[in-house]
Amino acid sequence: MANQGILILTTGGTIDKNYFDALSEYQIVDSGIPALLDEARVALPYRLVELMRKDSLELTDADRALIAAAAREAPETRIVVTHGTDTMTETAKLLAAEVPGKTICLTGALSPARFAETDANFNLGMAIATVQVAQPGVWIAMSGQVFDGLKVRKDREAGKFVAL
Amino acid sequence: MANQGILILTTGGTIDKNYFDALSEYQIVDSGIPALLDEARVALPYRLVELMRKDSLELTDADRALIAAAAREAPETRIVVTHGTDTMTETAKLLAAEVPGKTICLTGALSPARFAETDANFNLGMAIATVQVAQPGVWIAMSGQVFDGLKVRKDREAGKFVAL
Amino acid sequence: MANQGILILTTGGTIDKNYFDALSEYQIVDSGIPALLDEARVALPYRLVELMRKDSLELTDADRALIAAAAREAPETRIVVTHGTDTMTETAKLLAAEVPGKTICLTGALSPARFAETDANFNLGMAIATVQVAQPGVWIAMSGQVFDGLKVRKDREAGKFVAL
Amino acid sequence: MANQGILILTTGGTIDKNYFDALSEYQIVDSGIPALLDEARVALPYRLVELMRKDSLELTDADRALIAAAAREAPETRIVVTHGTDTMTETAKLLAAEVPGKTICLTGALSPARFAETDANFNLGMAIATVQVAQPGVWIAMSGQVFDGLKVRKDREAGKFVAL
Repeated sequence: MANQGILILTTGGTIDKNYFDALSEYQIVDSGIPALLDEARVALPYRLVELMRKDSLELTDADRALIAAAAREAPETRIVVTHGTDTMTETAKLLAAEVPGKTICLTGALSPARFAETDANFNLGMAIATVQVAQPGVWIAMSGQVFDGLKVRKDREAGKFVAL
Repeated sequence: MANQGILILTTGGTIDKNYFDALSEYQIVDSGIPALLDEARVALPYRLVELMRKDSLELTDADRALIAAAAREAPETRIVVTHGTDTMTETAKLLAAEVPGKTICLTGALSPARFAETDANFNLGMAIATVQVAQPGVWIAMSGQVFDGLKVRKDREAGKFVAL
Repeated sequence: MANQGILILTTGGTIDKNYFDALSEYQIVDSGIPALLDEARVALPYRLVELMRKDSLELTDADRALIAAAAREAPETRIVVTHGTDTMTETAKLLAAEVPGKTICLTGALSPARFAETDANFNLGMAIATVQVAQPGVWIAMSGQVFDGLKVRKDREAGKFVAL
Repeated sequence: MANQGILILTTGGTIDKNYFDALSEYQIVDSGIPALLDEARVALPYRLVELMRKDSLELTDADRALIAAAAREAPETRIVVTHGTDTMTETAKLLAAEVPGKTICLTGALSPARFAETDANFNLGMAIATVQVAQPGVWIAMSGQVFDGLKVRKDREAGKFVAL
């Protein structure tokens, strides 16, 4: 368990989606992650970097390379990545290959943080805890579980992540 | 990281407080923990036992002995205990002394789960993750941190838990 | 002020929009109006009819004729219509022309009822009160105001309804 | 229906109750009414005066006289009073006797506005609408109904207001 600061990289995804009446469509907006951390009364030092605001289906190889570079070059060894759920496992694979020796946890949400009913707060709590107590490696925290980031898939029909 | 089931023991505390107009005072009520787990779409098997509904300032030695016995005798080796914050560290000490070889995480909330703004969901997420990935021992997940359960205190004035 | 029952016609609109991760788009779903009424502890008798689930930009003349017929043929003389905001005033005009002698109030929301931050509860409260205390006619309750339904427009840029 | 400004007098009550862990009791705090009006996107001009912060069981004759004086002396003729529910009808009687010619609506909540589940937003919406469309007099908006303020009582056991 480390008390040193945590890096939080936000990349978009459902967790940060909002809905605008004027446009009648949803958009990913200013990250709501800082508000979630305030609401949770997080007293642990952290640094938050908003890397991009994309649905994870739109992430390119260049986007993923940027996420990996940001994680690798950061002084922090404990890193939370908020991410869309559809391609979360792909980014996990790249991070496992390119960022050795750090404890990284990806998380996101199936229901946007701005909803009254959402898994966002709980999932972010899982991720923040995981990077404090887990062994170095890449983890995914979703559906109430902390998975090995290389041994998990999203089951779209069931609406949950399941171990491989 | 284990996929085996988790035991959740609820004991009351602010996390489960409600307010009744008819009485003009708060009371600890039916645990709201199952609703939090549903909202978080927890797909991990768990068993929830409501041990008591008490403010942690009212917990007696017998109450604490019951908590320890329930943790020790349970088949599960991964146990979350929801608990009032004022004497959470006392219960942690007893659990550390009497329940060896299990991964136990205590958590609670500074703001009731029934409030619109609450640390309950996040804290419960931290605890659920901690018992999946941490080493055996007693942990406290509060204020965005996972603490060694024997090396932490509540700073009432600051409204947060701090490492000793 | 009447204690007789109120008819609530739901037609869709932002107030009833939800977001589904699997589809990555919003959809209008099972009306959330009954949940709002329960949360508000409404003890007044009411009858709720879900007429359609449409964005108001998609409402056809036939849809509007159905809304007017449902209002006209109903035994209730006090009627709330939940409706998308973009064409709410068009439906108000038709109701004013075709349903004489009843007190009708249209309302909706700029932010979905399922969001943590929403005008849905407040607006529905305005509408339910309006049909109890206003003179017969067609009213629109939005943006904290009760407007004459024939003398109001939606200002999309400003994100509010304004009197003509 | 008037577009002129509305006066909102806050006096405390459950609607403005909060809970503080450090004290382990609830307290009435900074009025949350402005936040509710913002969330509802109220565009109508209003003036808000925080008269007192009391549980309505603690209101004295002098407190009630102050509420009546504030309502009578105000330039506004449309006045919303947020108030604890236990003695709301007593204050209604005094306002009916001492503030003629104005449209006044008292409201409050059975569940605090800071709760995730609350009747506060809906009730405030009812009151704001009532003072815009109702005849001069004193009204009480609770339990989904707009009551004549002199012909209503709180049924504590049933947890609702009922007409006399």
